Amino acid sequence: MTDQKTYAVLGLGNGGHAFAAYLSLKGQSVQAWDVDPQRIEQIKTRGSITAHGDGLCGTAVIDLLTPDLGAAIRGADVILVVIPAMYHASLAEKMSAHLTKGQLVILNPGATGGALEFRSILRRHGGAEATVGETSNMLFTCRSDAPGDVTVNAIKETMDFACVPASMTSWAQEQISFALPQFSAVDNVLCTSLTNINAMMHPLPTVLNAARCDAGSPFQYYLEGITPAVATLVEQLDNERLEIAKAFGVTVQSLAQWYKDSYGRDSENLYEAVHGNNAYRGISGPTNLQTRYLTEDVATGLVPLSEFGRAVNVQTPLMDAVIELASSLIRVDFRKEGRTLEKLELAGLDVAEITSYVA
Amino acid sequence: MTDQKTYAVLGLGNGGHAFAAYLSLKGQSVQAWDVDPQRIEQIKTRGSITAHGDGLCGTAVIDLLTPDLGAAIRGADVILVVIPAMYHASLAEKMSAHLTKGQLVILNPGATGGALEFRSILRRHGGAEATVGETSNMLFTCRSDAPGDVTVNAIKETMDFACVPASMTSWAQEQISFALPQFSAVDNVLCTSLTNINAMMHPLPTVLNAARCDAGSPFQYYLEGITPAVATLVEQLDNERLEIAKAFGVTVQSLAQWYKDSYGRDSENLYEAVHGNNAYRGISGPTNLQTRYLTEDVATGLVPLSEFGRAVNVQTPLMDAVIELASSLIRVDFRKEGRTLEKLELAGLDVAEITSYVA
Repeated sequence: MTDQKTYAVLGLGNGGHAFAAYLSLKGQSVQAWDVDPQRIEQIKTRGSITAHGDGLCGTAVIDLLTPDLGAAIRGADVILVVIPAMYHASLAEKMSAHLTKGQLVILNPGATGGALEFRSILRRHGGAEATVGETSNMLFTCRSDAPGDVTVNAIKETMDFACVPASMTSWAQEQISFALPQFSAVDNVLCTSLTNINAMMHPLPTVLNAARCDAGSPFQYYLEGITPAVATLVEQLDNERLEIAKAFGVTVQSLAQWYKDSYGRDSENLYEAVHGNNAYRGISGPTNLQTRYLTEDVATGLVPLSEFGRAVNVQTPLMDAVIELASSLIRVDFRKEGRTLEKLELAGLDVAEITSYVA
Repeated sequence: MTDQKTYAVLGLGNGGHAFAAYLSLKGQSVQAWDVDPQRIEQIKTRGSITAHGDGLCGTAVIDLLTPDLGAAIRGADVILVVIPAMYHASLAEKMSAHLTKGQLVILNPGATGGALEFRSILRRHGGAEATVGETSNMLFTCRSDAPGDVTVNAIKETMDFACVPASMTSWAQEQISFALPQFSAVDNVLCTSLTNINAMMHPLPTVLNAARCDAGSPFQYYLEGITPAVATLVEQLDNERLEIAKAFGVTVQSLAQWYKDSYGRDSENLYEAVHGNNAYRGISGPTNLQTRYLTEDVATGLVPLSEFGRAVNVQTPLMDAVIELASSLIRVDFRKEGRTLEKLELAGLDVAEITSYVA
């Protein structure tokens, strides 16, 4: 086994830039794709991706930069999908014709139910011989302000990772162990999917600040948008998520624990954790309601979480209320457009059957 | 029949001040009560209530000012209850021992289900021989800035009014026709109860502005708090109310019509109606979440409206979502504390049975 693999990086936003640069600087072969041909051209013109920041530094040569999805996937051992979760489904459909046996697809991150939905689409459209996995979060704290340029402030030391079925996770880990040793196996995709921090931190506070988002009135999302009452409500929302995980018998981090692990601060409560976090200073709230805080985090976060709740008979009144208000606020039928049990191929299954399905 | 009646005015807040002054200036005998003995003393010291403003002007002698509820009710032909709706139930219990046959009690306004709840409590605690009615709104646009002083900017020309049972409404109207000719009979208390404008305009926008209410950040409630998206959502909420009324076969005004009738402006939509309304300039939003916009208007507005919806099989997803978020935000179990069908003595009844019950 050689340490050199070929990685396809699909999506060249913030995270895609960081993955492409990181893997190239690790000596891997990188084939990168983006839906926007202009962006591909701009990076090609530069000839490389420049990474700077405390997490990663250097000039990374990318072997292939292409707007041709088939070309990017061809010959790749590992395919990293680094796009907003609400586009996973359409990308899966487009990818299906190009995938071959032995390829590994990893959603970074999967949000909730990403790998399950992805595999379900591959089954219907071909490409089902590839293995699909997901992470619970983004590996990099990063920002790309221009094509070909990325600032990587930090690389997380560890990142929950699982494949569906879980029996493929250790094989997958072997494939990526040299380049991505941070990817740490958890029991199954229930663990990664039920650890959706964005689904906790984004839609509910956005709804409770909806008027000023809609008006485009500037406010600091975390420091002004998350008041004591908002934080308490987010904690109650998080309890619904923890109850679902408990009903599935899987262990996930509470928000409090996640803040402690991610930012190294012990806090009395969520309000203190948020307000003591320097990384949140200067982060603005959405300036309109067509924001990923709703479009992405309701469709691929709260909806599948609520659906998982239904599957295990856990009530999710707060999740449901937020889904309802968000749906009406931006006129999207999230209950239909979002990740339902049906889309995850879990409709009608009980706890034991779901656990066995993902095993 | 003489034009002179004895009125008890219970509650000396803004509306109670206006009622007491108005009735006295109309030549009626007025016995006024407030829960706060100090307020009674302060008005007594002044010796009268001074009314000024475009709606009402004069110095009104009040025959009896007392913190003794029984004394205020004794000998009154008509008892006007002018207190926040969430205190109706406890006042009903306290009043029950003092009421006698032939007395007329009118809740100003009843919010949703006020007269039904009131009568239900009288039945359990005595006093059931009194007739109970409600208005759908407050007769006066007024403000009392000091005990004994009230500014009345306007007196509405007409005010929906009904008794429970509706067969008593015309008798009640005769009692008050000289002093309160504005009280205009509608079919039954379903009409008054399903015309709860505050339940539409207060809790939902408060939830969508919850963070800045919680932070105490000053904002203009209507002009800044009701953005286009908020207004559209309020219209959707109002549609749920209109669907309930339709299922009961009763006619109620839409918010659009209400704004037109109340403020004489034709508007394309709610956003325009609100933003074109000069009366809303300068009205501040709640500076904390312990506000009547939630405590009163959820408990005695959205909860009974949602319950009425349940009785007639009309879905109320937005009402339910707001009830859920408001309950969690201020830790009040509104589904239990609010006006349930059981408290209105309507549990288990269908449309025909409810219609017959209020007839």
